Amino acid sequence: MQIAFIGLGNMGGPMAVNLIKAGHSVKAFDLSQDALAKVQAEGGQAAASAQEAVQGAEAVVTMLPASQHVEGLFLGSGNLLASIAKGTLVIDSSTIAAATSQKVAKAAEAAGIDFIDAPVSGGTGGAIAGTLTFMVGGSDAALERARPLLEKMGKNIFHAGGVGAGQTAKICNNMLLGILMIGTSEAIALGVANGLDPKVLSEIMRRSSGGNWALEVYNPCPGVQEASAATRGYTGGFGTDLMLKDLGLAQENAMTVKASTPLGGMARAIYAAHSIAGHGGEDFSSVIKMLQKKG
Amino acid sequence: MQIAFIGLGNMGGPMAVNLIKAGHSVKAFDLSQDALAKVQAEGGQAAASAQEAVQGAEAVVTMLPASQHVEGLFLGSGNLLASIAKGTLVIDSSTIAAATSQKVAKAAEAAGIDFIDAPVSGGTGGAIAGTLTFMVGGSDAALERARPLLEKMGKNIFHAGGVGAGQTAKICNNMLLGILMIGTSEAIALGVANGLDPKVLSEIMRRSSGGNWALEVYNPCPGVQEASAATRGYTGGFGTDLMLKDLGLAQENAMTVKASTPLGGMARAIYAAHSIAGHGGEDFSSVIKMLQKKG
Amino acid sequence: MQIAFIGLGNMGGPMAVNLIKAGHSVKAFDLSQDALAKVQAEGGQAAASAQEAVQGAEAVVTMLPASQHVEGLFLGSGNLLASIAKGTLVIDSSTIAAATSQKVAKAAEAAGIDFIDAPVSGGTGGAIAGTLTFMVGGSDAALERARPLLEKMGKNIFHAGGVGAGQTAKICNNMLLGILMIGTSEAIALGVANGLDPKVLSEIMRRSSGGNWALEVYNPCPGVQEASAATRGYTGGFGTDLMLKDLGLAQENAMTVKASTPLGGMARAIYAAHSIAGHGGEDFSSVIKMLQKKG
Amino acid sequence: MQIAFIGLGNMGGPMAVNLIKAGHSVKAFDLSQDALAKVQAEGGQAAASAQEAVQGAEAVVTMLPASQHVEGLFLGSGNLLASIAKGTLVIDSSTIAAATSQKVAKAAEAAGIDFIDAPVSGGTGGAIAGTLTFMVGGSDAALERARPLLEKMGKNIFHAGGVGAGQTAKICNNMLLGILMIGTSEAIALGVANGLDPKVLSEIMRRSSGGNWALEVYNPCPGVQEASAATRGYTGGFGTDLMLKDLGLAQENAMTVKASTPLGGMARAIYAAHSIAGHGGEDFSSVIKMLQKKG
Repeated sequence: MQIAFIGLGNMGGPMAVNLIKAGHSVKAFDLSQDALAKVQAEGGQAAASAQEAVQGAEAVVTMLPASQHVEGLFLGSGNLLASIAKGTLVIDSSTIAAATSQKVAKAAEAAGIDFIDAPVSGGTGGAIAGTLTFMVGGSDAALERARPLLEKMGKNIFHAGGVGAGQTAKICNNMLLGILMIGTSEAIALGVANGLDPKVLSEIMRRSSGGNWALEVYNPCPGVQEASAATRGYTGGFGTDLMLKDLGLAQENAMTVKASTPLGGMARAIYAAHSIAGHGGEDFSSVIKMLQKKG
Repeated sequence: MQIAFIGLGNMGGPMAVNLIKAGHSVKAFDLSQDALAKVQAEGGQAAASAQEAVQGAEAVVTMLPASQHVEGLFLGSGNLLASIAKGTLVIDSSTIAAATSQKVAKAAEAAGIDFIDAPVSGGTGGAIAGTLTFMVGGSDAALERARPLLEKMGKNIFHAGGVGAGQTAKICNNMLLGILMIGTSEAIALGVANGLDPKVLSEIMRRSSGGNWALEVYNPCPGVQEASAATRGYTGGFGTDLMLKDLGLAQENAMTVKASTPLGGMARAIYAAHSIAGHGGEDFSSVIKMLQKKG
Repeated sequence: MQIAFIGLGNMGGPMAVNLIKAGHSVKAFDLSQDALAKVQAEGGQAAASAQEAVQGAEAVVTMLPASQHVEGLFLGSGNLLASIAKGTLVIDSSTIAAATSQKVAKAAEAAGIDFIDAPVSGGTGGAIAGTLTFMVGGSDAALERARPLLEKMGKNIFHAGGVGAGQTAKICNNMLLGILMIGTSEAIALGVANGLDPKVLSEIMRRSSGGNWALEVYNPCPGVQEASAATRGYTGGFGTDLMLKDLGLAQENAMTVKASTPLGGMARAIYAAHSIAGHGGEDFSSVIKMLQKKG
Repeated sequence: MQIAFIGLGNMGGPMAVNLIKAGHSVKAFDLSQDALAKVQAEGGQAAASAQEAVQGAEAVVTMLPASQHVEGLFLGSGNLLASIAKGTLVIDSSTIAAATSQKVAKAAEAAGIDFIDAPVSGGTGGAIAGTLTFMVGGSDAALERARPLLEKMGKNIFHAGGVGAGQTAKICNNMLLGILMIGTSEAIALGVANGLDPKVLSEIMRRSSGGNWALEVYNPCPGVQEASAATRGYTGGFGTDLMLKDLGLAQENAMTVKASTPLGGMARAIYAAHSIAGHGGEDFSSVIKMLQKKG
C-alpha cells in the first residue's frame, strides 16, 4: 500500500520503518533532513513537503509533537486536507487534545476523508520493536481499515470510542500512571526510611493490594529491577517533561469538562517542580529523588 | 496446640475459628459476650479474662483495634506479659504503629517471650476463608514457629524484616492502595465526563501502564465488575473510616521519620472529607462519588 | 465622552450605569433585552448590535464571560475591530486568558487602536458602588487615557505591566485568594474540632502571622462576621463556579509557562469537588462545609 | 518575684533575660553550660538541676523542644511536679501537642499547681525584643496571674480558651502561615514566569483580596522587601525544619480529631521535600525555590 508518513521523530521514525519492513511503500516527510535520511536508508522515499508526501497515498500517518502542529498541518495555511484524495484514511498518532482531534476529524469528514486518532504508549523501545499500544478513537469501519497498518507497528489495539476517545483514553491512562509512579515512590521511600529493604517491600506490595504497573515492570528505586530506568541512572525510558506534557493535557481536559482531579493536579505540580529542579530530561521515575533523603 | 486468642471482632473471630477447625485448642477472650459465644459455638473455650486465656498457652494471638489497646493489654495495668509463660510465642495481628510493636516486643524479649507483628490484609472475607495475607516483622526463628499457625488463617505470608516491619509494610501498602483507588477514580471519572464507556476505559487502562489492583479486582465504578463493592452499593468491603485509620498511621509514621508523602497526605484528607460528608461507613471505593457528577 | 459599552451582565450593567451617572454618553449592547432595558432606564442608549454601538465612540468598554467571547467579538466573524475608528481606546474588563488579550491587542495595534486589559475585582457590590479594583495591562499612555473612565467605575487602579499583565495579575491574585480561603477554612475547622471558639481563634490568627484578607473581611464561618456571605447563608458574594473559572485560567497559564502550583491546583480540585457536590452557586467561602462536620 | 526558668535555647534564653531586666530574680536551668553562662552574665542564677531551680519559685517558666521533653520533665523520672510548691504558677511556652499540655495540667491541678500553656510566635527577634505573641490556654485566673510576666516577654497576649487551647491556636495559625507562604510563593512565581515584576505584583496582591501577612512583612522573593529573610539569603527567620515540626503537630492533631486539612497536609509534604533537598536550615520562605526556575 502507498502510505504517507509525516513526522519522523524518535517515535515516528521507527514506526515508518516498521511499515516499510512490512512491504509498504512509504513516502515520508519531516523538517529534519537527518530524520528523512534515516528512513530513506531503510527503503523509504523522501518527500519535499507534506503536500508531496500525500500525493497518491491510500493512507496518511502523522506523528507530531502537539495540538498546534496537527491543527496547523491539516487546517492551517498548508491546508493539507485539500491535497489528500477523497476516500483516503488518515491515522493521527500524535498525543494531543481530544478537541483538536475532533476539529480535524470534522473537516476531514466534510472532505470525504476517514480520520482516526490513534495515540500510542510503549515508548521508543516499543516503536522500534513494533510492540506499541494504540488507543483508537473513530468509527468501527475506519479502525478496521487501519488495523492491518496498526498491527505492523504495535501489539495491542484498543478501540476507546468515537473520534477523540483515543486521546482521552491515553491521557486518563497516563494521568493514572503519573499518580501510580509518585504513590509507589512515596510508599518505597517511607518503607526505606523505616529500615525496610526496598526489594522486599516492593515484592510484598506487588503481590498485595498496592500492586500496580510501576511495581511490576518500572520500579523507581535503583537496584530493585535489573532492567529498570532507575537501575541505569534514570536514562532512556519516558522523560519527566513528556509526562508533564501529558499531565498538562489531562488537566486542560479536566478544566474543560469541570472534573475534579486532585491527585492528577498534584502529580502535575510535583513533576513540574522536579523539572524546575533540573530533572526534566531524566526518566519520570526519578521523581523518587524528591521524596527520599540521600544516603 | 494450646492457643490463647484475644480480640474476637469481625477479623479476629473468624481467624480464631480457623485455628479451631485446624484442630487447635483455643481459649479465647473478648469484652463482648456475643463474640465469645460465637467462638464457643465453633468449639472454642471462653476465658473470663485475658489473664485466664493465656494460662497454659504455647501461643498467644491478638487482634485489637489500635495501638493503645495493644500497649494497654501487654504493658498497662493488666500487664499481661507477666502472666505469659517464658518461651511462649506471641503473634500480634493488630494494625498499629510500628513503634508500639517494637515497644511491646522489647518488653517481651526481656521476659523471654517471642513476639512478632503480623498485620493482615484481605478483609473479613479473607478472614473467614482463611486466605489472609500476613506481613510479618520479627526474627526468622519466631516467624518459623508462627508459620504453621499463620498458614491456617492465611494464604500469603511475607517476611518484611525485624519487629515492626510488618506494620510498616502494611501501612506502606495501604497508603499506596488508598492513592491507587483515588487515582483510578479520577481517571475513570475524567473519561466518563468525556463520554467514554467506563468498562471500555477500565479495560484499556488495566492492560496498559495504568494497570493496578483496583482496576484488576476492585473497580470503583458501579456495574464495571459484577462482584465489586461498587456494584453492590458500596456495602461490605473495606470501609472509608478503616482506610482513614491506616492513612493516619502512615502519616504519623511519615512525620516521625520526616518523610514527604504528598499524595499519601492528600489521600488522607480526601477520605477524611468523604467521611465528613457522611460516607465513613461505606466501602472506600465510594470515594469516586466525590469526583463525579450525578446523572 | 461618547462611549460604547458591550456586555451588560451583573458586573457590566452597573459599570455602564456609573459611566452614565458621571455624565458620559453611553451606547450599550447586550444580547439580553432585559439588560439593555436596565441601562436605558438609567439614561443610556441601546444599540442593535456591537457594530452600531461603536459608531462614533471615542472609547469602547467590554465586559464578557470568557476568552472565546472576546476573541469572537473582536477578531471573529463580526470583526468588530474593523468597525472601530482609528485612535479609539478599547478597555477590556473581562477576565480571560492573557494570551487572548495579547492576540486582540496585536490586531488592535495594527489597526491603530489603543487596547488595554483591565480585569476587575470587587464583585457586584463593588461594581454598583463604583469601588472596583482594576488591574491594568498596557502602555502608560493608554492607561492614562483610560484612567478618567476607570476612576468612575473603581477606586484602585493598578498598572501591572504590558498588555496581558492585568489578566496575569488578576489570576495570580485570585489563585492566592482561592488558597487563602481554603487554608483559613481548614484552620478554623481544625480549631473548632478541638473545642475553640471560631470568633476567638479567627481574631487571634487575624492579628498574628496567619492574618489574611479572608480573616479580615470574608470569614467563612457563619456568625463570626455580621456582614459576611457565610453569615447570610453563603448567598451573594463570589460564587464557587466563578472561583473555579479563575482557578482554571490560572492552571491553564501555569501549564503554558510550565510553572508548578501545587496549592493552586489542589484548590481548583477542591472547589471542583465542592461544585460537583452541588454548591457551585453558593459563595466560594462555603467550601468550609467540605471540611467541617455538622453539629 | 522569684522565677524558675527551664530551657534556655534561642527562644528561652532571651525570654529569661527579659524577666531579669524587668527586675525579677531568675534561677535558670539548661543542660548546656554555655546557655546557662549567658543568662548568668545578664544577672541570672544558674541551678544545677531543674529540681534546684524550682526551689522557692513563685512561678516556673519552661521552654522546651517537644512534647516528650515537657512530659518527661514534669511527669517522668524526674517528676518535677513533686518538687514544685503548692500554689505555684507554671507557664509552659513550649510548642507541643495540646494533649500533652492537658495531661501535665491535670497532674498539676491534682498537686494544687496552676498551669497554663503559652506557646509563642515572633521568632528569636521577638524573644530578644520582648515583642512575642503569646497564645494562652488555661483559666482566666491563671492567665491573670501570668499576665505581668508575659508582658515582660511579649506584646500581644491572646486567651484562646482552656488548657491546651494555646497550643491548638498556635498550630492552627502556623498551619495557615505555612499555607500562606507557599500560596504566595506560587502566585509570585507564576506572575514572574509571565514577565511581571515581583515588586509590582506583590504590591497589587497585598492591597487586593490576596492580601496576607507574608505579602505584608515576609515576602519570599529576594529584593522585594529590604528587611525580609529572602533578601538576606534566607538566613535568620523561621527555619524550614521548625515549620515542618509545627505542620507535623497540626497533622497529628487533625488525625486525632478526624479533620480534613488538604492544604495543610500538602504544605507539610512540600516543606518536607524542601528539607530533603537540603534546605531544612534555611528560612521557610525559601520554599519559593522549589517553584521557580533559576535565571
